[in-house]
Amino acid sequence: MPPHILRIDCPDEQGLVHKITGVLFNAGYNILDNQEFVDLEAKRFFMRTAFEGPTAPDRVVSYLEQILPQDSVVKLVSQERQPIVILATSEAHCLGDLLIRHFSGELPGEIKAVIANHETLGALVKPFGIPFHCVSHKDIDRPEHEKRIAEVIEGYRPEYIVLAKFMRILTPSFVARYRNRIINIHHSFLPAFIGAKPYHQAYQRGVKIIGATAHIVTDDLDTGPIIAQNVIPVNHAYTAAAMAQAGRDVEKIVLARAVKLVLEERVFLHGNRTVVFE
Amino acid sequence: MPPHILRIDCPDEQGLVHKITGVLFNAGYNILDNQEFVDLEAKRFFMRTAFEGPTAPDRVVSYLEQILPQDSVVKLVSQERQPIVILATSEAHCLGDLLIRHFSGELPGEIKAVIANHETLGALVKPFGIPFHCVSHKDIDRPEHEKRIAEVIEGYRPEYIVLAKFMRILTPSFVARYRNRIINIHHSFLPAFIGAKPYHQAYQRGVKIIGATAHIVTDDLDTGPIIAQNVIPVNHAYTAAAMAQAGRDVEKIVLARAVKLVLEERVFLHGNRTVVFE
Amino acid sequence: MPPHILRIDCPDEQGLVHKITGVLFNAGYNILDNQEFVDLEAKRFFMRTAFEGPTAPDRVVSYLEQILPQDSVVKLVSQERQPIVILATSEAHCLGDLLIRHFSGELPGEIKAVIANHETLGALVKPFGIPFHCVSHKDIDRPEHEKRIAEVIEGYRPEYIVLAKFMRILTPSFVARYRNRIINIHHSFLPAFIGAKPYHQAYQRGVKIIGATAHIVTDDLDTGPIIAQNVIPVNHAYTAAAMAQAGRDVEKIVLARAVKLVLEERVFLHGNRTVVFE
Amino acid sequence: MPPHILRIDCPDEQGLVHKITGVLFNAGYNILDNQEFVDLEAKRFFMRTAFEGPTAPDRVVSYLEQILPQDSVVKLVSQERQPIVILATSEAHCLGDLLIRHFSGELPGEIKAVIANHETLGALVKPFGIPFHCVSHKDIDRPEHEKRIAEVIEGYRPEYIVLAKFMRILTPSFVARYRNRIINIHHSFLPAFIGAKPYHQAYQRGVKIIGATAHIVTDDLDTGPIIAQNVIPVNHAYTAAAMAQAGRDVEKIVLARAVKLVLEERVFLHGNRTVVFE
Repeated sequence: MPPHILRIDCPDEQGLVHKITGVLFNAGYNILDNQEFVDLEAKRFFMRTAFEGPTAPDRVVSYLEQILPQDSVVKLVSQERQPIVILATSEAHCLGDLLIRHFSGELPGEIKAVIANHETLGALVKPFGIPFHCVSHKDIDRPEHEKRIAEVIEGYRPEYIVLAKFMRILTPSFVARYRNRIINIHHSFLPAFIGAKPYHQAYQRGVKIIGATAHIVTDDLDTGPIIAQNVIPVNHAYTAAAMAQAGRDVEKIVLARAVKLVLEERVFLHGNRTVVFE
Repeated sequence: MPPHILRIDCPDEQGLVHKITGVLFNAGYNILDNQEFVDLEAKRFFMRTAFEGPTAPDRVVSYLEQILPQDSVVKLVSQERQPIVILATSEAHCLGDLLIRHFSGELPGEIKAVIANHETLGALVKPFGIPFHCVSHKDIDRPEHEKRIAEVIEGYRPEYIVLAKFMRILTPSFVARYRNRIINIHHSFLPAFIGAKPYHQAYQRGVKIIGATAHIVTDDLDTGPIIAQNVIPVNHAYTAAAMAQAGRDVEKIVLARAVKLVLEERVFLHGNRTVVFE
Repeated sequence: MPPHILRIDCPDEQGLVHKITGVLFNAGYNILDNQEFVDLEAKRFFMRTAFEGPTAPDRVVSYLEQILPQDSVVKLVSQERQPIVILATSEAHCLGDLLIRHFSGELPGEIKAVIANHETLGALVKPFGIPFHCVSHKDIDRPEHEKRIAEVIEGYRPEYIVLAKFMRILTPSFVARYRNRIINIHHSFLPAFIGAKPYHQAYQRGVKIIGATAHIVTDDLDTGPIIAQNVIPVNHAYTAAAMAQAGRDVEKIVLARAVKLVLEERVFLHGNRTVVFE
Repeated sequence: MPPHILRIDCPDEQGLVHKITGVLFNAGYNILDNQEFVDLEAKRFFMRTAFEGPTAPDRVVSYLEQILPQDSVVKLVSQERQPIVILATSEAHCLGDLLIRHFSGELPGEIKAVIANHETLGALVKPFGIPFHCVSHKDIDRPEHEKRIAEVIEGYRPEYIVLAKFMRILTPSFVARYRNRIINIHHSFLPAFIGAKPYHQAYQRGVKIIGATAHIVTDDLDTGPIIAQNVIPVNHAYTAAAMAQAGRDVEKIVLARAVKLVLEERVFLHGNRTVVFE
């Protein structure tokens, strides 16, 4: 049986760790791993605990909610592999990397389906035995396109939605529907090179390092809370196209890492930042 | 007033976090930062807690020692800047880096003295207002040399001793005298290139990355528990001398980082490995 | 038409660059990219030139061979995508990564076939439309197994053979057959942790960084000339299994990079080291 | 005798390498190291050659200027240690790092003087036997301040001026006076966090990586051609102050690297980008 994961995010006050671990201890649970963080300035407390023991830990949650301060968020996950749906367009590297990890049993989640607005990636997805849905954006407006995508998504009831180089801007209403549950990979070291063609911008600026950023999707494009970032060195001999090619390795590794962190419930939102227990 | 730092290293058992934080909570202390690690295989528990509140936390230690399992090690540090003594030979980069950090107030410790077996570095140390002692190894045997060094060290009562490119092998009796309190920088990515002239070995082997390793000194040369490591890329155009020069940047950064971690009491020995709460 | 790639590896003497570029200039070729390296100690000269222009550059090679010193090696490649055959066992990450790159058109080579000693990876390979051959090692001795593998290889006439986590030791006679044309990925930062179970060794030693090494296969296991290496940080919370999982990301990126460098003819052997023009 | 360094920056045309190396060959010089780069889009050629041989290589320059295309820039440096002047304010880490390297003989240049607008760093500089000038900006306007600084600089005739955390904005007229000869370190991974307090901006944005950028100073603040960049990971536990402290290690290493590259004449301006032969 996988361990239970308990997430707590609440106003800080004295004695929280003692109280919370007391609830688990008294109910007979054994803590395997425990991480806390206090933002001393914002007076906010974050905790992630992996524990094992008696079944039915739901009572733990209801008891905690009674003793924790107002405005506390408690979440318990007892499932090893949470369901996700991937959205893509036509680039294979991020999607392919997630598929291979899924094939190897390395991804701590279950890819329920892949939805794309082009047919291109179908040939890549189908052999893995995962449903592929092409939902074209042609001849329809954005809300209609998103409505069709959402209909497909609903059939799979995913916990998280992963944008693996999905090259369409999402409307606020779609984002609100899956609030804080959509993960995107942006092909620059944010906040540098916000917007279109970041590698061209990077080339023009003559940077010596390029990167990629995985973030939670919010209404403001490219400004959501950052989960993970990584970089690689480039030099004067890289054209914009060469930067794009080199950047793909960073994009896929960063996205896979962010997806893993999110699926293992290690990522907490904290204003426009994140607390990530690695 | 600086926060108190509590370190606990003991056999794992259920409810430890609850118990320990209970002692602090009941005594009126406020936890600022708390990190734990359980080695599930070895069944060993490690915890570092920064807390603030009433004075005289020594009672906390004696109370903890009563309730914790046999074979527990509890250490409390309430001092902001623990004293260190640096040993060096004739290379300036590691020593100089520590001196500049000390000058900037960036080092969480107090450099009480520098001891070297050559005069070379005196000109670098003295202007910083730090005592410099040349204890030559010429015409005396190793035990006698170490005896003279220890005499100088004793005058400063350091908590830790930092070997900043001290190019002399230490005898077991010297190591035993400052057991687990001597930090060394080795100019290779251990365990690769143990022994003499690691950059020449690295050049001969044609590696594409070189590194440095900061470790606790034990009797077996270059095999002590590792605190920190870092690396940089090299290529075919690097001679052994060029590798050595490039490597100096890694050595000084890694040593400074290890010294900071040790002074902040973030490093726990665990067999021949370390637990480091960063 | 792809540019021609000229590789020269010869004893150093004054005026080589002038002479060689003169041959190209006088024949009407235009140099697009040119890299040279002189090992001043070994007095050996290496040069890689990409050039475009009139067809039939074979005459360039024969003319160069006349004017260059004895013991010169000149190679000309005018083909954009050289053929390779991949050998694997049962791990998917390195093979999968190469297949996705191939699918995206990102790999500067043509994967002609995949040969494995288990059936496991067949399901991964076949959908990409690439022949998969299972050549089991069961009930036969090593020479017989290698003979059968070589028979399959011969059918594809590859320029290079890539070991993508092929977990079998090769005999000297197999290595000699494809001398300097076999590329392997070793799951440690060589020369650390030579031999079996490098991640277990790394865990035991308590290193803070792990890595992977792509190298040319020679008779001595794990000691061939290094093409590329990379690393990632780990800490005390990583078990040997967690190190292995984290290490897979490094392994696949390093192997893919080495394969790209080799296919683009950027790698020169130089004793037991390599000269790599990136 | 140090090797001569020849730098050429000119419109690209066929046969340039052959012509240029011919001039050196015919004059009896021996090439030790040679690097070229052609920007195929901009049709611009860059070359750096280290060579040794007969004295008086000035004739080489005048001869090259005759045979190279219009708009060529040829520079020859035969001096091992070019003179520099450092400008600073009150932070010790970048200046201290350069001073230690100078003390060790590791810096390929000669620090002629340090000028600061505060007295603070005098205590750090003087013991190294290097002149320290405090030129205060108090009670005078910016042009007058720069005039006084320039007067001190003129006395030392430096080839390059290094801003080691000099926290004053330079006027266009000062920049013009030392056109393309002023190197600055900016404490962010440009172009992210342009302007004041980059670490506070980075903290607010919740980035997971911070960096530093060394660049040539132009009129537009923080947008000059980038010479070198580097980064380090941070996480949610870093306050803005902790990021600033961690960032100092990157700043000093990046600035030292850029200074070394510039002093060795490895950096070419190319529009708002640089070509750097490493």
